[in-house]
Amino acid sequence: MTTVGILGGGQLARMLALSGAPLGLRFLVLDSVADACAAQFAPLLQADYRDQAALAEFAARVDVVTFDFENVPAESAGWLAERVPVFPSPRALAVAQDRMAEKTLFRDLGIPVPPFAAVDSRETLDAALAAIGTPCILKTRRLGYDGKGQFRLRGPADADAAWAALGAQAGTVGLILEGFVAFQRELSVVAVRSREGELRAWPLTENWHVDGILSASLAPASAEPGLQRQALEAAGKVAAALDYVGVFALELFLRDGVLLANEMAPRVHNSGHWTIEGAETSQFQNHLRAVLGLPLGEVRPLGHSCMLNWIGELPPAAPVLAEPGGHWHDYGKSPRAGRKVGHATLRADDPQELAAALERVGRALGRQAQVAPVAARLRGA
Amino acid sequence: MTTVGILGGGQLARMLALSGAPLGLRFLVLDSVADACAAQFAPLLQADYRDQAALAEFAARVDVVTFDFENVPAESAGWLAERVPVFPSPRALAVAQDRMAEKTLFRDLGIPVPPFAAVDSRETLDAALAAIGTPCILKTRRLGYDGKGQFRLRGPADADAAWAALGAQAGTVGLILEGFVAFQRELSVVAVRSREGELRAWPLTENWHVDGILSASLAPASAEPGLQRQALEAAGKVAAALDYVGVFALELFLRDGVLLANEMAPRVHNSGHWTIEGAETSQFQNHLRAVLGLPLGEVRPLGHSCMLNWIGELPPAAPVLAEPGGHWHDYGKSPRAGRKVGHATLRADDPQELAAALERVGRALGRQAQVAPVAARLRGA
Repeated sequence: MTTVGILGGGQLARMLALSGAPLGLRFLVLDSVADACAAQFAPLLQADYRDQAALAEFAARVDVVTFDFENVPAESAGWLAERVPVFPSPRALAVAQDRMAEKTLFRDLGIPVPPFAAVDSRETLDAALAAIGTPCILKTRRLGYDGKGQFRLRGPADADAAWAALGAQAGTVGLILEGFVAFQRELSVVAVRSREGELRAWPLTENWHVDGILSASLAPASAEPGLQRQALEAAGKVAAALDYVGVFALELFLRDGVLLANEMAPRVHNSGHWTIEGAETSQFQNHLRAVLGLPLGEVRPLGHSCMLNWIGELPPAAPVLAEPGGHWHDYGKSPRAGRKVGHATLRADDPQELAAALERVGRALGRQAQVAPVAARLRGA
Repeated sequence: MTTVGILGGGQLARMLALSGAPLGLRFLVLDSVADACAAQFAPLLQADYRDQAALAEFAARVDVVTFDFENVPAESAGWLAERVPVFPSPRALAVAQDRMAEKTLFRDLGIPVPPFAAVDSRETLDAALAAIGTPCILKTRRLGYDGKGQFRLRGPADADAAWAALGAQAGTVGLILEGFVAFQRELSVVAVRSREGELRAWPLTENWHVDGILSASLAPASAEPGLQRQALEAAGKVAAALDYVGVFALELFLRDGVLLANEMAPRVHNSGHWTIEGAETSQFQNHLRAVLGLPLGEVRPLGHSCMLNWIGELPPAAPVLAEPGGHWHDYGKSPRAGRKVGHATLRADDPQELAAALERVGRALGRQAQVAPVAARLRGA
């Protein structure tokens, strides 16, 4: 009997547990809140990630550790890794946690990236602004996600406001200034690497964000084979450099035929949720297979899939469930503004069928704006 | 928040909970044993099915009740049904629990059945034997499953031995004598009926049994459309007659182009496990959708699937996981002779591909005999 410990008990941990159950696995979730939604289907150890007594209990009760949440303190991950196998490794986690380390790695590997520079004072902000130009975005180096900890600068005059908003964090989580990329499309590649170094990538996925939070994903993205190759090559380089084990996502901007690496998520990723129904093997099961040293599953897509994220609150399920190929995912969380509470996946054999299903669902739920860009892409395909 | 109560905590309850989680459901399992495998992923109320205090607590904690196990005492199901919705209804359950009531219903609905007669004494056994002839099978009317509670009679001289083996149960669970059907194939139809009476059936499945226990299932069965229609019609008649809500299976014998109804299972069924990966919607999720009054999901198959049952103990998982389209289901049970401890599903777009995958897995696991009849059917298709 193998028990997998998961740091963080949100929807990713929940979906990991659900997809790992058929492998005969048991789970133990460590989270600081009592109502962590993964705890509805897996035992919970409620404690702070820095609570060493809890970490010791956790290490004693599990055979291997992985993550639902990448912003676990590096020291805690490192402490655990001295006692029990931890995948991905604390080193890979540390790089992915730090936008500066991550982008430096991309650049060192020859992967195109938007211009960036570290900012640790008002002076270095001014210097970075002069080098990168505007528009650009000041971000925290660590602990940012879903658009949090970011300030967009339209011109040099915004420097004061940006510093006022984020300057205090320069000495704690650090800051980075990134050139704003006038991209044509946002894409991601979700890939899995085994303990032996085998890499498999699901097809390139196109993503649409609203207010910095993922709104919809379409897979396979309609993209020429050259782009898929570029993305896979970048993913392979990053994974090999970090000796990465498990699933990760690389978020990419497409600008004039070139994919620029935006950031890496060292875990199963929202843009891979469509793989539950839309691929032979889901990102969740393949992450567990990789972490446990089991053979990786096939990543080929089953038709065309669109994932719609539900943010803040769930719409009614019936219009999705009534669709052929309509699948519902309620994470069992209470509603809260900006919170990811569920998603739907629509699957069809044919892009036109999928577009029609999306339009029906969009109308039924009054969410035409959410489905429109995806349907337009499918109609144009 | 909706909580589904499941009577019985075996692998069916476990797979119901796993497939119901994405619908945002919570579960409560009632089982008499502490190590019921469903309890690894759902809360357990451990008690005897006749314990009225436990039933009262169960009723108070759930919104709707369904079954993992059909041999729950009818009084318990009835008692619960007065307090909380129970699907399928205790009446449907009572019919399906009793081979005599079930076969009489089939006959009354004009569905072909093997010859049968009730047996309640040594004299009625002799009379039934004279009417039905040999070979035939004496069975308990209730509480039999997986070949248990059965005695095969090759000739009239076996009557003494049959009566010695089962006669004592004539006054308790009752007995039935059934004519032995020299069938060419065993098939099943797994179907779901909604609260509103909508019926959907997954494609006809071919099954192979060993020692009375399901060994392999192939879906879709290679069968002319006429057979699929016959099966669907029979399923529809039975479900309508019982005002059935949820998933059920009808086990069928094919003899000379005619489908004879063998028995009905008033629950998700082992011959429908392939639907987890092999159909747009699994039997488990559609059962829950039906029970909760949600729209039914599409039942169309995704390619060709073969389910292999693991009885007694699990073989190594790696050869299955290494197959494209290979999926593993470990029920988290301890090994025991005759116990269903897991299954594998192999899926492929093409029958020849599936046959090749089965043969590889059969060789790797030393289970050539288990896969051979399925591969032969696919090769002949």
